[in-house]
Amino acid sequence: MIYLDNAATSWPKPEMVYCKLLETIRSGGGSYGRGNHRMASRAGDLIFEARRLCGQIFGFSNPNDVCFTSNGTEAINLALKGILEPGNRVITTRMEHNSVTRPLQKLGKYGVEIIKIDTSPEEGMSLDQLERELKSGAKLVVCNHISNVTGTVNPIAEIGELSNKYGALFLVDAAQSAGNKKINVEEMKIDLLAFPGHKGLLGPMGTGGLYIRQGLVLNTLKEGGTGMDSHSLEQPVWGPQRYESGSLNTPAIAAMAEGIRYILDETIESIEKKESRLVVQLMDGLEKLDGVRIFGPAKERSRGSIVSIQLKGYDPSEGAVILDEAFGIAVRSGLQCARDAHENLGTLNGGGTIRISPNYFNSEQDIQHCIDAIESMCGKG
Amino acid sequence: MIYLDNAATSWPKPEMVYCKLLETIRSGGGSYGRGNHRMASRAGDLIFEARRLCGQIFGFSNPNDVCFTSNGTEAINLALKGILEPGNRVITTRMEHNSVTRPLQKLGKYGVEIIKIDTSPEEGMSLDQLERELKSGAKLVVCNHISNVTGTVNPIAEIGELSNKYGALFLVDAAQSAGNKKINVEEMKIDLLAFPGHKGLLGPMGTGGLYIRQGLVLNTLKEGGTGMDSHSLEQPVWGPQRYESGSLNTPAIAAMAEGIRYILDETIESIEKKESRLVVQLMDGLEKLDGVRIFGPAKERSRGSIVSIQLKGYDPSEGAVILDEAFGIAVRSGLQCARDAHENLGTLNGGGTIRISPNYFNSEQDIQHCIDAIESMCGKG
Repeated sequence: MIYLDNAATSWPKPEMVYCKLLETIRSGGGSYGRGNHRMASRAGDLIFEARRLCGQIFGFSNPNDVCFTSNGTEAINLALKGILEPGNRVITTRMEHNSVTRPLQKLGKYGVEIIKIDTSPEEGMSLDQLERELKSGAKLVVCNHISNVTGTVNPIAEIGELSNKYGALFLVDAAQSAGNKKINVEEMKIDLLAFPGHKGLLGPMGTGGLYIRQGLVLNTLKEGGTGMDSHSLEQPVWGPQRYESGSLNTPAIAAMAEGIRYILDETIESIEKKESRLVVQLMDGLEKLDGVRIFGPAKERSRGSIVSIQLKGYDPSEGAVILDEAFGIAVRSGLQCARDAHENLGTLNGGGTIRISPNYFNSEQDIQHCIDAIESMCGKG
Repeated sequence: MIYLDNAATSWPKPEMVYCKLLETIRSGGGSYGRGNHRMASRAGDLIFEARRLCGQIFGFSNPNDVCFTSNGTEAINLALKGILEPGNRVITTRMEHNSVTRPLQKLGKYGVEIIKIDTSPEEGMSLDQLERELKSGAKLVVCNHISNVTGTVNPIAEIGELSNKYGALFLVDAAQSAGNKKINVEEMKIDLLAFPGHKGLLGPMGTGGLYIRQGLVLNTLKEGGTGMDSHSLEQPVWGPQRYESGSLNTPAIAAMAEGIRYILDETIESIEKKESRLVVQLMDGLEKLDGVRIFGPAKERSRGSIVSIQLKGYDPSEGAVILDEAFGIAVRSGLQCARDAHENLGTLNGGGTIRISPNYFNSEQDIQHCIDAIESMCGKG
């Protein structure tokens, strides 16, 4: 099997991720913040180390500025619902994942005003339009760093600068960039960074997190036992525990930390470089084929490790099934849970696209095999 | 290390739980509901099998009546916020965990009326008072099955009967009973059952779920990608996917299913019987010691596998540290994230209790070692 569906979840994981997951769950009970025995203390050490590594990879210095969630979607929900109140204005793009558009749609019903600004699959969010809208006032700007459909890279440093200039908070959905594109929340003036742990960070499923800039206190999405301030009927006000009610997924978070350690050792730069090379190879190969339509930025531009295509004569889902069954290649088809992005792309009613998403563990041979398979399907094989 | 903190999280797990976790994460990518390649299909099969086993252990026939959450607390939050609206009346006890009291406290601020009825550490919720309050009308009754502080067993079949009679929905927090006490949602007239996966069900952390009786549609706690109805800006209305936005924690859920399979093989009855025997042995031993105060039901009554004590001359947290450091015994001290229960017990301002919670994997020797340790601490050693 050639796995080219890393934008859904990455596979394989570095060996240490598997080892740490198993070692942590085998070696003892103990729940983070619950209990004063050595197993619970060890859970505390593991969680703190994971927070520290998140700070290292995302550029913040206080490990307690990140809370852990069960996935990126939960982190986005927490950020949006933790910040936005009826009457607030929020600015977003026309290229968001349903993890952003659907919570916003719901908040819209409660009186939050949602502005969706023009977004080009080539360049991302229009900065001119963003500035015009910011001048009318906004509580929050939210967008993805990289589109999960086209790989389009939003100019997040510029968006952060503008948001900051006009007093709006800036939330970034890093689902497709955490671990494979450089992110520095302080330099990029990001107030809230939502990320999954099981994609680019190479951790297990069931992990994710939200960086919250110091000083911001969000409304909570869930309340319950936090292992601290148990005396009170209210959630603690400070500390990541405010947002982490219930038992944390310690073994998976400890394993995600090993994923981050692996990335820091390899360096983000070398990961990005290799993925870019594979993407260019893929696009080079596909561009030569009749019947292949490639969406998103031109080959010369920066893009995430995502290439969405349509094949003449194939419904995207049918195309993906053939790639799997006849060629042993795993890709994702359809709308990729991103309604607005496909509407913007004009592919909403055409069955979406076939999305090919290699990562650092793929080889040039994998990509060539994929190109050859698609060539066969286009009748040139 | 003798692990007697199973009410926080169970340890060890059955061997198959470790194996399934590792096998699932190692053997392929693929995210439930995302993609049409064989790895994604396999994730779908694993999730469906886990839903089916939940139905088997909790007595419901449609596997799609359960949605998975990251822990029990999330399931409770989803149930409470998914059902209750301003102006609704909710009845609960004075022995709840913060996972119930804190979300209720928040809902109270939004106009939900909260009635906390008398609850005896011996017998649980007062059925007389419950009926009186139900006569005044209520949208929901919520209580734990077993107290996480005292092991008190609530008469949930009777509570279900009464709630049903007066048209109130019934939500059970099964944090301390799922997997070690018989639960049948249909027979017990339970409309919503919230459970963790990493305690009595013997699964990994990061798992839990909410059974939702057919026909009930809850407001969602999170929205986002669901792998279905992606075309719409709204969440799907039917199916567990409505409540499962974002990538599901497939490997851990598949491993939890192995925990359930283990329990079904051993039978709940034999697990309950062994745990009861260990609890009686523990109470027998502790009752003989001067300076030990035991809370909760008398030895003759049914109780969960939880014994809370105070030791004369020791602050509970200090006592727990000594048990760990000098005797290698892991227990939990303090308030166990259950403010109301300790207030009801009169232990809120005394530093709470030392909670000893054995499970099926403990031996009589473990219990004897614990009794001996406490005897030493009481100056009789």
